[in-house]
Amino acid sequence: MSTSPIAPDVAAAGQRAAPEQLRQAAQDHLWLHFSQRADFAHERPLPIIASGDGCYLTDVDGKRFLDGLAGLFAVQIGYGHGEEMGEAAAAQMRELPYYTNWNAAHPRAIELAQEVASLAPDGLDHVFFTSGGAEAVESAWKIAREYHSLRGERRWKAIGRDVAYHGTSMGALSITGLPSLRAPFEPLVPQVGHVRNTNRFHRPEGETEQQFTAFLLDDLEQRIESEGPDTVAMVIMEPVQNAGGAFTPPAGYFQGVREICDRHGILLCADEVITGFGRLGDWFGSTRYDIKPDLITSAKGLSSAYASIGALIISDKVAEPFKQPGAMFTHGITFGGHPVQAAIALKNIEIMKRERVVENVADHQDDFRRTLAPLLDLPIVGDLRGTGFFYAIELVKDKDSRTGFSDEEAHTLLHDYLSNRLYDAGLICRADDRGDPVVQISPPLIAEQQQFDEIAGILGEVLTEAATRIR
Amino acid sequence: MSTSPIAPDVAAAGQRAAPEQLRQAAQDHLWLHFSQRADFAHERPLPIIASGDGCYLTDVDGKRFLDGLAGLFAVQIGYGHGEEMGEAAAAQMRELPYYTNWNAAHPRAIELAQEVASLAPDGLDHVFFTSGGAEAVESAWKIAREYHSLRGERRWKAIGRDVAYHGTSMGALSITGLPSLRAPFEPLVPQVGHVRNTNRFHRPEGETEQQFTAFLLDDLEQRIESEGPDTVAMVIMEPVQNAGGAFTPPAGYFQGVREICDRHGILLCADEVITGFGRLGDWFGSTRYDIKPDLITSAKGLSSAYASIGALIISDKVAEPFKQPGAMFTHGITFGGHPVQAAIALKNIEIMKRERVVENVADHQDDFRRTLAPLLDLPIVGDLRGTGFFYAIELVKDKDSRTGFSDEEAHTLLHDYLSNRLYDAGLICRADDRGDPVVQISPPLIAEQQQFDEIAGILGEVLTEAATRIR
Ligand SMILES: Cc1ncc(COP(=O)(O)O)c(C=O)c1O
Ligand SMILES: Cc1ncc(COP(=O)(O)O)c(C=O)c1O
Repeated sequence: MSTSPIAPDVAAAGQRAAPEQLRQAAQDHLWLHFSQRADFAHERPLPIIASGDGCYLTDVDGKRFLDGLAGLFAVQIGYGHGEEMGEAAAAQMRELPYYTNWNAAHPRAIELAQEVASLAPDGLDHVFFTSGGAEAVESAWKIAREYHSLRGERRWKAIGRDVAYHGTSMGALSITGLPSLRAPFEPLVPQVGHVRNTNRFHRPEGETEQQFTAFLLDDLEQRIESEGPDTVAMVIMEPVQNAGGAFTPPAGYFQGVREICDRHGILLCADEVITGFGRLGDWFGSTRYDIKPDLITSAKGLSSAYASIGALIISDKVAEPFKQPGAMFTHGITFGGHPVQAAIALKNIEIMKRERVVENVADHQDDFRRTLAPLLDLPIVGDLRGTGFFYAIELVKDKDSRTGFSDEEAHTLLHDYLSNRLYDAGLICRADDRGDPVVQISPPLIAEQQQFDEIAGILGEVLTEAATRIR
Repeated sequence: MSTSPIAPDVAAAGQRAAPEQLRQAAQDHLWLHFSQRADFAHERPLPIIASGDGCYLTDVDGKRFLDGLAGLFAVQIGYGHGEEMGEAAAAQMRELPYYTNWNAAHPRAIELAQEVASLAPDGLDHVFFTSGGAEAVESAWKIAREYHSLRGERRWKAIGRDVAYHGTSMGALSITGLPSLRAPFEPLVPQVGHVRNTNRFHRPEGETEQQFTAFLLDDLEQRIESEGPDTVAMVIMEPVQNAGGAFTPPAGYFQGVREICDRHGILLCADEVITGFGRLGDWFGSTRYDIKPDLITSAKGLSSAYASIGALIISDKVAEPFKQPGAMFTHGITFGGHPVQAAIALKNIEIMKRERVVENVADHQDDFRRTLAPLLDLPIVGDLRGTGFFYAIELVKDKDSRTGFSDEEAHTLLHDYLSNRLYDAGLICRADDRGDPVVQISPPLIAEQQQFDEIAGILGEVLTEAATRIR
């Protein structure tokens, strides 16, 4: 029960609440994700986003932003397709607003499964729907365990990578390679190993790409050996790792990972929650890097985040033992394959194809990098990395020695300073200090040179200013 | 990549695929939840639901069903509000199709948080949105752990109840009291205790309700003592437990549970994923049974399943330590508080109020029970239990001794026989053998005497027939 700062009669009359009423109601009732409550109680006004168009957002105060983060690495087609997507949702609502995928199905889930399978790499033909990314990761780990036991092997461990983010439900969180996210909640699911990620920025000078690949594969091999190879169910990796800042794989890396997994009978899962559906200029990062995974997890871009839907894509190899009479993947989610969410995702894929959104990334990723490249001249910018429409800028205290900031400096710089300044300057992107401090840039996949220029322009200004402040 | 049984040109032309094409595509690409793949490959055609209206569904072959399960305990307002809900979804899509609840908000999430808080029991004023029930349960357990550590205590364990279902992500699954669901996936999150549930059917003859309550509370107290009270973060229970079949609490039970939790500093979470939003004739089961929980998990009925949205509702007491500067609930979900899902849930609550859906349950629950009661005369029916629009019928082999079936008999009866026969007879309800064998009945909350009669009529026929088959 609550006393209502948005008077019900205001809502009932269809009037819009004033920004201050909304902020008060948010403070009183809406619990934000990964946010410090105190921040918006005292320090700064809560950003309340009211509308969107193309790559832009407008808040309740009328301030306009370029969304350099595509919501949260998700809004591939931008915010301007509400009309068409709304019609698709409404049509499905009229026909069948809900039904399950439990011992039953409905046309939209079937059509979407077929569509996703047709876009996925060869041999990945089966689609299990979830309501988001973490649920897809949970489903991947669970199906890996059950796959092995149907084949008479008991394998339960997972291997992920340092600093990698895979979600916050307890299974996904156990795989997440960020101790600061896990520690408050331990004990979690035991026996996850974490191996080195593909961050090359702090590697010894002179190390070749080939040497770097060999170093990483050796680390993985060692980790598997030390866990006991026949206890490991799954290795899970993003094609390009987001947390820590857009770590691309060195040449030969995923071929080596695949070979190691095969040699030890371990399933390989590509977590494509971010990289799936076009971010790297291919429908899947697995195709771009020829990863040949047994499982793919996806979510965000599947519907351009217009819906709450994710998917685990399963290879024929993994599906095989589940065909035995009596065999079952003992797993289910009430909203899995929701018809309205499926209809929205289908329409999203249709729009992406029609408007050649993936091709836009493939065609313009070089322009994007070229536009961002001059930022490397700033004293505070140590590294620019990424590919597709997926970049990160690593900030350093001393460029020559590649010395980073202390935890406290990084926090002040990113959390207190940069986030606010970028916001004021009208650019949404993410100042992230979960690994080394980075600014993440991941615009809608419809972005063009104009948006590249705006992003580089604002970042240039703000980072120049930040550099003078920090010394 | 796949060869397409639904030719793309069929889809593109907006034509409907034939049922057999859909079945083939489902077999090839759609991985069902909690379903044996072999079932629909060989044994029987996959039910494909095409449309809905009121309490009824129609499949792609034109067969009509009374949905005695409300989708999956979820479609409170029935299937007939697609027009209005579709308009709400479309309007929100046009305005803002997506934004996060991460260090930002948008009007619909704020309004929905306020609305949910206003319906929730006193003192439960804060709402954290998820995309479903298991995510709400995960969030509850995690916030309980972080709450205690912010207050300087390290507590991590959870206590749930035998046979209770709380979802399938690894945290929620660890709490789930069904060993058959957990076993294929162990090790899970360690150190969850399970206590007796409120199933009274197999208790010793002559035990009074008071004695039963005392027995259950003693079991809980013992469990907590044996875990070590100051290691236990949370006790989680459904107001009326679904799995096992609609176990209502005996008098004084929840008052005793609350007292035990308070005495040991343990948070009490009411899992209202099913009971929330009207199923028991009150907005929340916690109100009906005066549970006074610290946390409430909800999902399904919040949107009548027209959206993929859930919520963790948090008390002021639990919120308090998170207000400290620097404190944070270290948890987040990309689609949490999704604006389109929030708009749909808001419209659902508006419809529920306008059409007096909760009052319909309160006013007609006695009629529903009265209509089902004669089933108790059938030799195969041992027990009829439940309340609101939430009932279960327990099937027995021998009524006088209350002897149940062997696991194999139960499986044959429920999985192979009853599910199919009920489906053929045009009634969707759930023949469940996760605990003792039960038929679960949980129609949309708009059901009336006509639907009660149909349900009782079909169940009467099919169960009479089943009884003759089983002996
Ligand atoms: C790679 C990856 N996996 C999993 C997740 C979890 O997805 P969700 O927030 O939808 O649960 C994320 C979220 O950002 C992600 O980036
Ligand atoms: C009581 C309860 N809790 C949690 C869940 C899990 O919800 P979901 O399937 O949305 O993850 C369910 C699902 O039926 C449930 O009945």
